[in-house]
Amino acid sequence: MNPTDFQAWSRETATRMEAALGDLLPSKSIAPSRLHDAMRYSVLDGGKRVRPMLVFAGGLVSDADPARLAVAAGAVEMIHAYSLVHDDMPCMDDDVLRRGKPTTHVEFDEATALLAGDALQSLAFQLLADNKLSDDPAIQLKMIQLFATACGSRGMAGGQAIDLDAVGKSLTLPELEYMHILKTGALIRASVLMGAHCGRPMQAAELEHLDRYGKCVGLAFQVVDDVLDEESDSTTLGKTAGKDREANKPTYTSLMGLAPAKKFALELLADAHEALKGFDARADRLRQLADFIVHRDR
Amino acid sequence: MNPTDFQAWSRETATRMEAALGDLLPSKSIAPSRLHDAMRYSVLDGGKRVRPMLVFAGGLVSDADPARLAVAAGAVEMIHAYSLVHDDMPCMDDDVLRRGKPTTHVEFDEATALLAGDALQSLAFQLLADNKLSDDPAIQLKMIQLFATACGSRGMAGGQAIDLDAVGKSLTLPELEYMHILKTGALIRASVLMGAHCGRPMQAAELEHLDRYGKCVGLAFQVVDDVLDEESDSTTLGKTAGKDREANKPTYTSLMGLAPAKKFALELLADAHEALKGFDARADRLRQLADFIVHRDR
Repeated sequence: MNPTDFQAWSRETATRMEAALGDLLPSKSIAPSRLHDAMRYSVLDGGKRVRPMLVFAGGLVSDADPARLAVAAGAVEMIHAYSLVHDDMPCMDDDVLRRGKPTTHVEFDEATALLAGDALQSLAFQLLADNKLSDDPAIQLKMIQLFATACGSRGMAGGQAIDLDAVGKSLTLPELEYMHILKTGALIRASVLMGAHCGRPMQAAELEHLDRYGKCVGLAFQVVDDVLDEESDSTTLGKTAGKDREANKPTYTSLMGLAPAKKFALELLADAHEALKGFDARADRLRQLADFIVHRDR
Repeated sequence: MNPTDFQAWSRETATRMEAALGDLLPSKSIAPSRLHDAMRYSVLDGGKRVRPMLVFAGGLVSDADPARLAVAAGAVEMIHAYSLVHDDMPCMDDDVLRRGKPTTHVEFDEATALLAGDALQSLAFQLLADNKLSDDPAIQLKMIQLFATACGSRGMAGGQAIDLDAVGKSLTLPELEYMHILKTGALIRASVLMGAHCGRPMQAAELEHLDRYGKCVGLAFQVVDDVLDEESDSTTLGKTAGKDREANKPTYTSLMGLAPAKKFALELLADAHEALKGFDARADRLRQLADFIVHRDR
């Protein structure tokens, strides 16, 4: 698999994902239509779809059915979208621009944004329970458990809470890393494993390696985010740039400096590749995705 | 089973539930501790625990293991608590008093309340996937699907969205009923079925009757809520009384008048009993619960 292949694959995956999300989300014509409109607005037509790609790439390792992967990836992306909707609200980060569009509470209203986020979380779990994702229902329950843990107070939501508490404080590097392993990392790690679980039963050692890959890529994703937030302008980024710095939030660049942060991202990339060394060519999309995540420019 | 028995049973169930919720919720000593503190504050030490009682009573019909019922009831109560936390926020109902205590965003802050609600929803699904609730994992997946649907945009969250849209509007009685069947009714209906699914496999007809019971009780619960909101003061109610009237929200009492609303509640109670007529004495707690819900004074 060469880089040109990867670009084509990622475009195809993004297109397939957009169609799947459109089908998985309730239509605007179904009541309550304003809520459904807000849910669709929050999820569709935007984002890099990194997490869905990790689900699909994880699924290639276990020869998973793409139809199953589309559902798992859809659930992951709905959780990601709901977290952004709530994170952008005035009582959290108070952001008005996301993916180049007004944030959901600006486009609709705060109450609708709150409920759209809530309903997207419910929908994610509904999809994971309602569709056959594994030949073994017990494995599917395990997937839901793994996924819910990644979303909750000891995963993504917990990371956001630590992030809030950190404003104006001087975190140490290990504290910053812990926050991001929860806030961004948990869902990214879960994405890889969710994809892998959709296929043939995986051995514990395989799952451990994939989890280590996910942990490295999740952290690298955040380090690169901080670097881009420091270096880019809002137009390129599609969201308000330099915001973390202005809000006096600790970032990798503020704690380490720009050049060491870039070096750290490359080390994490090397670790991610190391974690995959026992896998054959079916893990190449995961390898290419790690490269993409670290070398992206927005 | 006589009424005295029922009082003892409901006290025992509430006590058991409080202990179970205390165990199921993450300890304050686990990071992020402020978030876990807010989650515990939002769920523990309060509420009538009507939904958990419906889970336990539903489980009696199918001879379900009380340990399983405690988990299912815990998940239902966490969803109920999260919906109250979000509903009380300034961008929704902007309420400062709940169960006789300051609401979560008042006691903590808005961002923490938002995240605590989000994390409670995740935890509910985590519990339902992580604990054995049925001998058949496929039935357990069905339970999660049923439950997620009751929480989402075509259940509780959807009902709240319709409620928001209804402020200052004149709804018809069928529109009001539709709103409440989603907003309050969906979770109450799911509670009965979740309990029943924890035991022996139920036949489709049995589940249909239980669902009809749940629908009647769910609606009756809301009608009685409106009656109490009209007749009580805040001290008795443990929340701000007369608020819906002041907010110009349509209620059963405002649309029907007080006496017809009381009569409607009694009709729904009769329908609930009718739905249970094919069940033996194991459904008596459900019968008594319906009586309690309609005849309660707060």
